[in-house]
Amino acid sequence: MSLRYAYLGPSGTFTEAALRKVADPATDEFLPMTDVATALGAVRDGRADRAVVPIENSVEGGVSATLDALSSGVPLVVVGEALVTVEFVLVGRPGTVLADVRGVSTHPHAWAQCRKWMTANLPGAVHVPATSTAAAGARLAESDDGAPLGFEAAITAPLTAEQYGLEVLASRIGDSPDAVTRFVVVSRPGRIPPRTGADKTTLMVHLPDNEAGALLTMLEQFAARGVNLSRIESRPAGDSLGRYSFSIDAEGHIDDERVAAALIGLHRVCPLVRFLGSYPRADGGGVDVGKGFTDEDFRAGRTWVQALRDGVHPD
Amino acid sequence: MSLRYAYLGPSGTFTEAALRKVADPATDEFLPMTDVATALGAVRDGRADRAVVPIENSVEGGVSATLDALSSGVPLVVVGEALVTVEFVLVGRPGTVLADVRGVSTHPHAWAQCRKWMTANLPGAVHVPATSTAAAGARLAESDDGAPLGFEAAITAPLTAEQYGLEVLASRIGDSPDAVTRFVVVSRPGRIPPRTGADKTTLMVHLPDNEAGALLTMLEQFAARGVNLSRIESRPAGDSLGRYSFSIDAEGHIDDERVAAALIGLHRVCPLVRFLGSYPRADGGGVDVGKGFTDEDFRAGRTWVQALRDGVHPD
Amino acid sequence: MSLRYAYLGPSGTFTEAALRKVADPATDEFLPMTDVATALGAVRDGRADRAVVPIENSVEGGVSATLDALSSGVPLVVVGEALVTVEFVLVGRPGTVLADVRGVSTHPHAWAQCRKWMTANLPGAVHVPATSTAAAGARLAESDDGAPLGFEAAITAPLTAEQYGLEVLASRIGDSPDAVTRFVVVSRPGRIPPRTGADKTTLMVHLPDNEAGALLTMLEQFAARGVNLSRIESRPAGDSLGRYSFSIDAEGHIDDERVAAALIGLHRVCPLVRFLGSYPRADGGGVDVGKGFTDEDFRAGRTWVQALRDGVHPD
Amino acid sequence: MSLRYAYLGPSGTFTEAALRKVADPATDEFLPMTDVATALGAVRDGRADRAVVPIENSVEGGVSATLDALSSGVPLVVVGEALVTVEFVLVGRPGTVLADVRGVSTHPHAWAQCRKWMTANLPGAVHVPATSTAAAGARLAESDDGAPLGFEAAITAPLTAEQYGLEVLASRIGDSPDAVTRFVVVSRPGRIPPRTGADKTTLMVHLPDNEAGALLTMLEQFAARGVNLSRIESRPAGDSLGRYSFSIDAEGHIDDERVAAALIGLHRVCPLVRFLGSYPRADGGGVDVGKGFTDEDFRAGRTWVQALRDGVHPD
Repeated sequence: MSLRYAYLGPSGTFTEAALRKVADPATDEFLPMTDVATALGAVRDGRADRAVVPIENSVEGGVSATLDALSSGVPLVVVGEALVTVEFVLVGRPGTVLADVRGVSTHPHAWAQCRKWMTANLPGAVHVPATSTAAAGARLAESDDGAPLGFEAAITAPLTAEQYGLEVLASRIGDSPDAVTRFVVVSRPGRIPPRTGADKTTLMVHLPDNEAGALLTMLEQFAARGVNLSRIESRPAGDSLGRYSFSIDAEGHIDDERVAAALIGLHRVCPLVRFLGSYPRADGGGVDVGKGFTDEDFRAGRTWVQALRDGVHPD
Repeated sequence: MSLRYAYLGPSGTFTEAALRKVADPATDEFLPMTDVATALGAVRDGRADRAVVPIENSVEGGVSATLDALSSGVPLVVVGEALVTVEFVLVGRPGTVLADVRGVSTHPHAWAQCRKWMTANLPGAVHVPATSTAAAGARLAESDDGAPLGFEAAITAPLTAEQYGLEVLASRIGDSPDAVTRFVVVSRPGRIPPRTGADKTTLMVHLPDNEAGALLTMLEQFAARGVNLSRIESRPAGDSLGRYSFSIDAEGHIDDERVAAALIGLHRVCPLVRFLGSYPRADGGGVDVGKGFTDEDFRAGRTWVQALRDGVHPD
Repeated sequence: MSLRYAYLGPSGTFTEAALRKVADPATDEFLPMTDVATALGAVRDGRADRAVVPIENSVEGGVSATLDALSSGVPLVVVGEALVTVEFVLVGRPGTVLADVRGVSTHPHAWAQCRKWMTANLPGAVHVPATSTAAAGARLAESDDGAPLGFEAAITAPLTAEQYGLEVLASRIGDSPDAVTRFVVVSRPGRIPPRTGADKTTLMVHLPDNEAGALLTMLEQFAARGVNLSRIESRPAGDSLGRYSFSIDAEGHIDDERVAAALIGLHRVCPLVRFLGSYPRADGGGVDVGKGFTDEDFRAGRTWVQALRDGVHPD
Repeated sequence: MSLRYAYLGPSGTFTEAALRKVADPATDEFLPMTDVATALGAVRDGRADRAVVPIENSVEGGVSATLDALSSGVPLVVVGEALVTVEFVLVGRPGTVLADVRGVSTHPHAWAQCRKWMTANLPGAVHVPATSTAAAGARLAESDDGAPLGFEAAITAPLTAEQYGLEVLASRIGDSPDAVTRFVVVSRPGRIPPRTGADKTTLMVHLPDNEAGALLTMLEQFAARGVNLSRIESRPAGDSLGRYSFSIDAEGHIDDERVAAALIGLHRVCPLVRFLGSYPRADGGGVDVGKGFTDEDFRAGRTWVQALRDGVHPD
């Protein structure tokens, strides 16, 4: 079935690399969007079936924007994820040499991630912000020599250099050579992807109050059911300093008894819990379910209590 | 309906006083037994319908014997409880005066509970153990002057003095003038007494291992569901030193969602949990159910998760 | 140095067997006492230097009496412990055979521990309570045939049979063939036995209030410092039902940093903590000190904070 | 004493507004820097005595950059904080009207915070990223009409409009009209600001491993000492996905016993703890110290344990 995928464009971004891992441009429609909120909005209003947006350690400005856009407004759910290795190149128009470079355009997050290389190799270069690495590359490529761009080079993904015919002045200039960005595939709510045994569940949780005790109470809902967390991030709750919500990836699927039990517990103790999807892990890693936390353990407990209520003592 | 009540006899004990609070000698049959295990055995083998035995702070040797007898063997359940104020008197045969008393017979627990008075008033008196306070009184009453009993007085309940025509040498001689003993009414499993809103649930729980961490894990099953404990007692697990089980009274009824959830949790994390009954509290005290722990809160959580599983997002 | 040892007598009890493990009758003075409170009182008022009393799983009525006597009154401390294997024999006067036995005298705890054997082999036998197993043996031995004792046999330790020239009618009649009783050596406070690396610390702790949460708070003081508990027993606080104190054996010595830290924490959160001694473990078992809980870890933490306070940043 | 203050420039930013709350341009030297890392670097290498940088809910790109720059490299400490109300205005060159505006320049965070107003009032406007709100205003002011800037308006602080003679096209256009940004004053380690009774302590903590249990263990170090947290934020640990460190503001001063005890505990259980300063709270709010957590409570606990070690029993 052909699907329409909104993504954080333009063409050539790391997000497009992620998109190509989950969709096929030959059969699916790729719809580049200017920012994360717009991409998610396209799914909300039906212009797209899916959105692919960065969620963690992004170089495209993704994390906060994605978390916050998922956390409010019309409900959306994550139905998949993709991991992309992040590699930066410094590119210029053909003929440019390093010594020419006085200004470098790129997204601020990419600039931050190449800081060490820039300080060592182009200490005087000025940063010219762009809305994405691909946008910086595009602007560089589209200019002709006479125009005063204010920069002679851009930091982009290798794919961008290819697409725009730019010359690579330096490769692998990122501070973390093995950085990975995680992207999620977002959909309107509907059928949850079936349980595979190696799944994640993403949530947004508000705390009952502001104390350490409240965070402990929330985390205990997971611990009491043997559910590990693979990601936890605080997000300002928005109205004032000192109030936080938490964005969480838990190991397991809502169809796992232990995950359902943790959700029911959270629903009881937290003022707001938003379910943002259960979906297969991209890394295919397995999940260790501890003693007492299997589906069978939960069912056996319920069966036992029901028998007791019926006056039958199985022990 | 007439019921047969086994109880810790003989006639005149504090247990009989408790029995009279829950049964009527005019319509029910009272069956005195020599010890707690025998009384419970009479219910197990069908010779009695109910047993009334002391469970807490007993002067009749009750606590450990009752807890241990309930914790193993054919399952029994508690279906009610009764509180009896414990008051001790020193009694002698008519004509006895305090100065005559060289030996005092009573149950060892009663002896222990009158220690201060005895030390102050009869410092030289020797303790002659009896199987119950009533047995001590009976033996004193039945003896005739010539026989060498080895004691001239007994410590008993006021009721015993009356029943045997003994003379009260001193009243209110207990160290704790307002001591109360709690008795339980025990039955074979069957219909659980209906929920009243002011109930108790009694359990016996084995820990997964011997560390403080295991006890914490067990207690968290209650705390995570807002269930308070009104009694917790460790009992040696019997096979060797250093292994314990715990006898617990929890506030609430197995038909309360929060109690059922705690039981299901215990069933998952503990190697053995024995349900020993849900029944109305004798003191009629109410139960505070905290925010997030009402039946409605539990049902709302389950409904919410079910809706999510069905692809419906209620928030 | 010769010491005076009070113990739970009379001669021939299991307590004497424990006493012989820690003291030498050739050089030390053995002072039999009628009960635990009297033995501890002898140390308190200076008539004895040490008391040896049962503390756990006792057949002599020890546990509660010992715990309660240590928990109030003039402070005493445990300075050592001893383990004694408990073995019961059924004894009679020479010439007695099993078929003659209608009454059996022994301490109620011993009676309880031989219940299975008695039910199987002497189902009709009546229990005649005695203040100790040795007292039952002594009374049997001292009677001459004509006197109406009311019992023809006694349940005692093997040592008692030897001492009184009684005949063993049946051996190893206890329900738990490998039962062990733990005895403690009690002294007035003074020099604490030096740390051996395999020590125990005994405490009595009152909870801040009656909820499960209070018990959790107390146990967390141990868990947060990596201190395992080898024994925990609830004790009624005495004034009314539903209030408890806890008697605790923790692994480690007050001179261990982690034990001292747990004690300081308990002192802060509990209304009453009574230190009842640090002393070497009788079983010589080692203690696993987890990562982060060694003396060095505690000292390093303090040193680090002190450096920070002084404006020095060691990291 | 005159001090040199590095801050996130240029002149006219919200950071300068914060700086003016803690320093006086008449006596102190104000050194604008291009980004947070450079401002902190100026303190590290001695070119400045202090840096003022945003740390929470910033519109200038502060949070992550500040947290990460403080968390690694040569140690720095926070010695004060300042709160600034964030108010956005849309500004243009004199004569501009709203209908002229097709492009709007500002820092991406400011753009994100004015999203609702922009969508409602200038739905077609394109965002042109700038390195700060003040830089966007400056560029607009410095351009002359003929130049192709690509934007006709900027989102800035009211102060910027004033400084550059720009015309306010719309006021209070932020989504959260009462948004506040918190700034910190950073220094090289040295004398810690004295305890005032209303202080904060900032920390960066690595977890022992990635599980919910590890986060619980860390938070319990605070809870066990009654230390509340006013801010907790996860930060990717940098090397790979799924590893986090936590940036924390705790209530209290390192000279408070309870804070020192929590730090010692963290030092024991966490692989890395970085102390980032104790300093007075800008809001002057008091601190509730719970029962058992005052300095006196901690000292009393230590005194008690020391007495016990010396063989003195104070209870």
